[in-house]
Amino acid sequence: MRMMSWCAPSIIFLFGVASVLPAQDKPRARNLGVPFDGTPGPWNAITDVRGVEVGDSTLISGDSVRTGVTAILPRGKRNNDAVFAGWFSQNGDGEMTGTTWIEESGFLDGPIMITNTHSVGVVRDAVIAWQVKTGRKPKTNTYGESFWSLPVVAETYDGRLNDVNGFHVKPQHVFEALEGAQSGRAPEGSVGGGTGMVCYGFKGGIGTASRVVGSYTVAALVQCNCGARQQLLVTGAPVGREIPESTPRAGDPALDRADLGSIIIVVATDAPLLPHQLKRLARRATMGLARTGSTSGNGSGDIFIAFSTANPDAANAAGTVDLKMLPNNQISGLFSATVEATEEAIINALLAAETMTGADDLKVTALPHDRLREVLRKYNRLNP
Amino acid sequence: MRMMSWCAPSIIFLFGVASVLPAQDKPRARNLGVPFDGTPGPWNAITDVRGVEVGDSTLISGDSVRTGVTAILPRGKRNNDAVFAGWFSQNGDGEMTGTTWIEESGFLDGPIMITNTHSVGVVRDAVIAWQVKTGRKPKTNTYGESFWSLPVVAETYDGRLNDVNGFHVKPQHVFEALEGAQSGRAPEGSVGGGTGMVCYGFKGGIGTASRVVGSYTVAALVQCNCGARQQLLVTGAPVGREIPESTPRAGDPALDRADLGSIIIVVATDAPLLPHQLKRLARRATMGLARTGSTSGNGSGDIFIAFSTANPDAANAAGTVDLKMLPNNQISGLFSATVEATEEAIINALLAAETMTGADDLKVTALPHDRLREVLRKYNRLNP
Amino acid sequence: MRMMSWCAPSIIFLFGVASVLPAQDKPRARNLGVPFDGTPGPWNAITDVRGVEVGDSTLISGDSVRTGVTAILPRGKRNNDAVFAGWFSQNGDGEMTGTTWIEESGFLDGPIMITNTHSVGVVRDAVIAWQVKTGRKPKTNTYGESFWSLPVVAETYDGRLNDVNGFHVKPQHVFEALEGAQSGRAPEGSVGGGTGMVCYGFKGGIGTASRVVGSYTVAALVQCNCGARQQLLVTGAPVGREIPESTPRAGDPALDRADLGSIIIVVATDAPLLPHQLKRLARRATMGLARTGSTSGNGSGDIFIAFSTANPDAANAAGTVDLKMLPNNQISGLFSATVEATEEAIINALLAAETMTGADDLKVTALPHDRLREVLRKYNRLNP
Amino acid sequence: MRMMSWCAPSIIFLFGVASVLPAQDKPRARNLGVPFDGTPGPWNAITDVRGVEVGDSTLISGDSVRTGVTAILPRGKRNNDAVFAGWFSQNGDGEMTGTTWIEESGFLDGPIMITNTHSVGVVRDAVIAWQVKTGRKPKTNTYGESFWSLPVVAETYDGRLNDVNGFHVKPQHVFEALEGAQSGRAPEGSVGGGTGMVCYGFKGGIGTASRVVGSYTVAALVQCNCGARQQLLVTGAPVGREIPESTPRAGDPALDRADLGSIIIVVATDAPLLPHQLKRLARRATMGLARTGSTSGNGSGDIFIAFSTANPDAANAAGTVDLKMLPNNQISGLFSATVEATEEAIINALLAAETMTGADDLKVTALPHDRLREVLRKYNRLNP
Repeated sequence: MRMMSWCAPSIIFLFGVASVLPAQDKPRARNLGVPFDGTPGPWNAITDVRGVEVGDSTLISGDSVRTGVTAILPRGKRNNDAVFAGWFSQNGDGEMTGTTWIEESGFLDGPIMITNTHSVGVVRDAVIAWQVKTGRKPKTNTYGESFWSLPVVAETYDGRLNDVNGFHVKPQHVFEALEGAQSGRAPEGSVGGGTGMVCYGFKGGIGTASRVVGSYTVAALVQCNCGARQQLLVTGAPVGREIPESTPRAGDPALDRADLGSIIIVVATDAPLLPHQLKRLARRATMGLARTGSTSGNGSGDIFIAFSTANPDAANAAGTVDLKMLPNNQISGLFSATVEATEEAIINALLAAETMTGADDLKVTALPHDRLREVLRKYNRLNP
Repeated sequence: MRMMSWCAPSIIFLFGVASVLPAQDKPRARNLGVPFDGTPGPWNAITDVRGVEVGDSTLISGDSVRTGVTAILPRGKRNNDAVFAGWFSQNGDGEMTGTTWIEESGFLDGPIMITNTHSVGVVRDAVIAWQVKTGRKPKTNTYGESFWSLPVVAETYDGRLNDVNGFHVKPQHVFEALEGAQSGRAPEGSVGGGTGMVCYGFKGGIGTASRVVGSYTVAALVQCNCGARQQLLVTGAPVGREIPESTPRAGDPALDRADLGSIIIVVATDAPLLPHQLKRLARRATMGLARTGSTSGNGSGDIFIAFSTANPDAANAAGTVDLKMLPNNQISGLFSATVEATEEAIINALLAAETMTGADDLKVTALPHDRLREVLRKYNRLNP
Repeated sequence: MRMMSWCAPSIIFLFGVASVLPAQDKPRARNLGVPFDGTPGPWNAITDVRGVEVGDSTLISGDSVRTGVTAILPRGKRNNDAVFAGWFSQNGDGEMTGTTWIEESGFLDGPIMITNTHSVGVVRDAVIAWQVKTGRKPKTNTYGESFWSLPVVAETYDGRLNDVNGFHVKPQHVFEALEGAQSGRAPEGSVGGGTGMVCYGFKGGIGTASRVVGSYTVAALVQCNCGARQQLLVTGAPVGREIPESTPRAGDPALDRADLGSIIIVVATDAPLLPHQLKRLARRATMGLARTGSTSGNGSGDIFIAFSTANPDAANAAGTVDLKMLPNNQISGLFSATVEATEEAIINALLAAETMTGADDLKVTALPHDRLREVLRKYNRLNP
Repeated sequence: MRMMSWCAPSIIFLFGVASVLPAQDKPRARNLGVPFDGTPGPWNAITDVRGVEVGDSTLISGDSVRTGVTAILPRGKRNNDAVFAGWFSQNGDGEMTGTTWIEESGFLDGPIMITNTHSVGVVRDAVIAWQVKTGRKPKTNTYGESFWSLPVVAETYDGRLNDVNGFHVKPQHVFEALEGAQSGRAPEGSVGGGTGMVCYGFKGGIGTASRVVGSYTVAALVQCNCGARQQLLVTGAPVGREIPESTPRAGDPALDRADLGSIIIVVATDAPLLPHQLKRLARRATMGLARTGSTSGNGSGDIFIAFSTANPDAANAAGTVDLKMLPNNQISGLFSATVEATEEAIINALLAAETMTGADDLKVTALPHDRLREVLRKYNRLNP
């Protein structure tokens, strides 16, 4: 098995050798002229929220291993301070472990991991093993020498392109995604947990985008595996219907349904929001998803989480804790930013992914950039 | 005070004298060529779900009374059988009474009423008085001679056009809306609870639409009071930005905010869905709302309810009850229908309402039909 | 109709003329030797949380008017600053208006009112009228000159002793309860909203208790109308079974069911808890209720709300807000205090209420103090 | 490592050779004269609900391996038909995977597994491997040849007696628990997932009990690891305070806190309840827990699930499904039965467990039967 990790190439990328990262050379949606609203941050990525690091372990091997793990570390891999968080399930045919403690405590205490549906368990326990090994005990559940950990691991199903019942994700891939996490540019497309994903009948995967709202940043990272071709909208234009060709279903009748597939959406902000306010952000991810055409079909695991990197040390246990809160009546701009960043992150995922052939010789085509531009032009929705 | 009820004119309409209903003469969105997806029912209204009746009491009087009450009776005004129901709050700066019992019991037991924010109480108690007077005891909470009632009353805020603190809605208006409820064509625009509403900076109010999905119907009725002008999208086209004129804010700086205003969405179906499935439908209303541009601002009461008229007598108390259930894996079409009907209902509301001047001489302009068509044409989104 | 308000007598009481308050002369549970855990505050009442005021309007008139209104003002009647709050429905056959905004915003913005089931509406709108009249606009929903209000009004059903469909509660009673609210001793038993209530087959009503936990206070106020005689437990002793006499059901077969009746529980604290933490407190009220024997029958509206008077000015809208938070790992003592205060408040309600005859000549007997002591002694549960 | 499975001994037990099951020889609470309410089924166990099978894999080895896995199969190990289910988190410092799909679909589709906190992942993925291997595809998520699985795995923390970070639970133990599952007597005490648990300062673990309500059965199975010694109540008597000796904290100061520890409660019934009704049952588990003294401390994962074995084939996907529903107004007896069975199951767990010495030489003492009887006698709560 060939195991690809983006950490090494990404480091290289930082030195400018972009040519080793062909997938990353593809223009992103904004560069193609898709007329999104709002102002993105410098990376137009979740890493625009200071401190956030993203790492991937990508498994592509033989005919049918097409999977991986993505790690999002709210305060980076060297800082295990917890962050305030909230979550929401728009359609729960999926898994995100650790949510009962988020709901109860208001804290996300550790990384967010995204992988395939049948590897959630191995990733979960491997996160604990990593915490044991590195001493990064959860702050909210450490008592003296003891601690328990309730990792957050989410998934979408890559069983169309990947041998999902081969259980190819191993603890080492989890460690790799965690240890390779970095700030700066975040890989998109068929990487990490997004490796084997299909979205709106095109090749899907990981995508990200950000928005600057006054002095705050809001960003989204998605692992998208949702929707049927004919549903796809791009800034309102019916792109899916206009590009009916190459829908990857002929050889896969069992899955030729519009309502299968899922999306995990991670929303990050540096605005000082409390847990109940972050739940409000998570609920807005639905609206960004809706703008791309999905109606959250029955077989969809559309589960969203939002966290804030503000209020460091909020999980400290001594005395009372001093916090900042953004008042509710200043929050609406962050809502819109969440919707916009989610919408753009999904389109970015589609545009970054490359055509892939996987299990059972299924070939899933990438959204062709030129055709997208044609359609947007037809609907007067292409920026000059 | 002049009090307008649509019951009489509506009856007349059924005999074809449409000219007495000027507001109803206005073409609806579909007739204007807005390219919605899906197939509507005969009335393209919530009343396409057999049994559903809608009644309005409209209060327009003097300079500043612009309010009313809308009643939706799931099985009509002569049938107090309960229906399965579920609800969802996308943003809770609003009120929908009676929801704890819906959540607990799975039943909606009585009508759904919609009015202004400060009249929820009078409407609620008047529903009980009507139930006492007419003997329509709630089936789920009647024990021998005694019963208690937990009416469902929702609201949006009409304090811009209406003297909301004058408390003009009285029990008689509630009785009128209930007793005047009927099947067939459902009035839209500035009627009933929607009388004084503003939506995307245009005159808002009541709107409705329906979809036929196989042998089932799904329909939505909205009381829309949400959104800012620049947010409005119509089938993806940026209509709000293209029609910036006459935004009704100059004289009302306190309310010149994009994030105020609310929407109540009622989803009806005859598909045999259980309460937890109806909650799924309610959650899809968010996606229809999102398609029209809203991001559910902080000051928005975006509260949704869905019910099914299938399974009559499910609230009977003797022995066990026989039910039908549509399997989850056949539900996705109803999800899409909910999204589509919600989207169309909102646009229908905007197109039915007439320009209104109300409290403090505030004038709110109706969405001009010709301008809408121009913009849709510009974005290649106008049906021939 | 004779309308009784406790405000005047309560003032007198503060000067020591306790004899004008016969109901209040009855010893409370703790004075009778019931062996509760924990340390109560000075009043052993919700008013031990500094700032909290309670007011009642009690309607007792003729043969069948036995109802009223109770107002709990978190920061007193002259201070309309909002408080952080959370709520929980253990069994939702009841009403508490205003909860969607509490859930969304994290704030309780105004008083908590408790009345009978069929008067929730009049109380709700009258709270708004009071806010209009006195200028106490909700801080979370005021924009310039405009505001909207989403009052919190809860209920239990007094239709056994009261002519509940006579709609005897009027706005003036609401104003009276609000304006008469005070700190210090809080009336218990058949007062305010609790006037016509029946609890465990004895006369029920309003009860309260408090606990001191370190530097914080936690307190509960209940309006109890729940449970069947045979269920009643007092500090673990099967008091209900041991006192089977005078169960008030013979003349009321329709209501001779163990599973009807409700309880509203209001939990107050001065500990700096965030909204999601207050929801945790609200959820503990179930455990205090369980200790008194209830199993939350189907026909029960067991709805709980918790608020914190810490963090004044948290609802301010300018800039960011500075807050204090008690860490989760110091919260468990407050959980136990909530359970204990709830349990004691229920028993206090039973012991304060006097035997009452009401509608249809139904007579509901008060829990006899001497018999209670006998039973506790039998089970070795009586303090010396 | 010595690995103990109860499947073989349990089979022997069915032939009467009880002497090989020393732990099972211990009298259960009811046999000791604890005066519980209600009528249990033949086994006084979750297996009284026809079809339910329970299996355990118990790992006791060396000085510090004290852990295991418990499997509850709603329709037995040979039947993968899904069951209606609902869940509730009273305090979410714990994990129960698979709950978003239960909430969304209304179905529990596969077994419920309980293990230690840090082995949830391995158990989860091993359940999928077992489903792959045995062809027991989830009915709700199978499309043609493909399926995805969202196993339900819950946990409590055994890190006091067990080397929890040694990750000793392996897939083979999961298979063993599943394949060894049976009807009839269900092992209690230090078995399966309950092996290393501590409850109210005594040795805890697995316990079960049932109630017959008319023609239906309601039963509970708990994995109890919650509470502090001084909190323990047994049918109202303050047993914990009366037996202060041997509280296992001296050598473990970091965990000497009343508010740590957790309880998983599984409620089963054959009554035809819909998903929203089963959630109501799950919520009553809190009340049974409360009767044993817990106040659900901050560090507690008190997560409950309820399922109904009625309505076989409800997860079929063709056409509409015929269902039976027990009306809400007949459900209250099931609520009380849930409370009672939960309470008794916890006490059964305490009485079945044997004193255990584990990691770091910690010795946790079993609740002494004779001392319990003494205390109950003192409080007049011992059946003759």
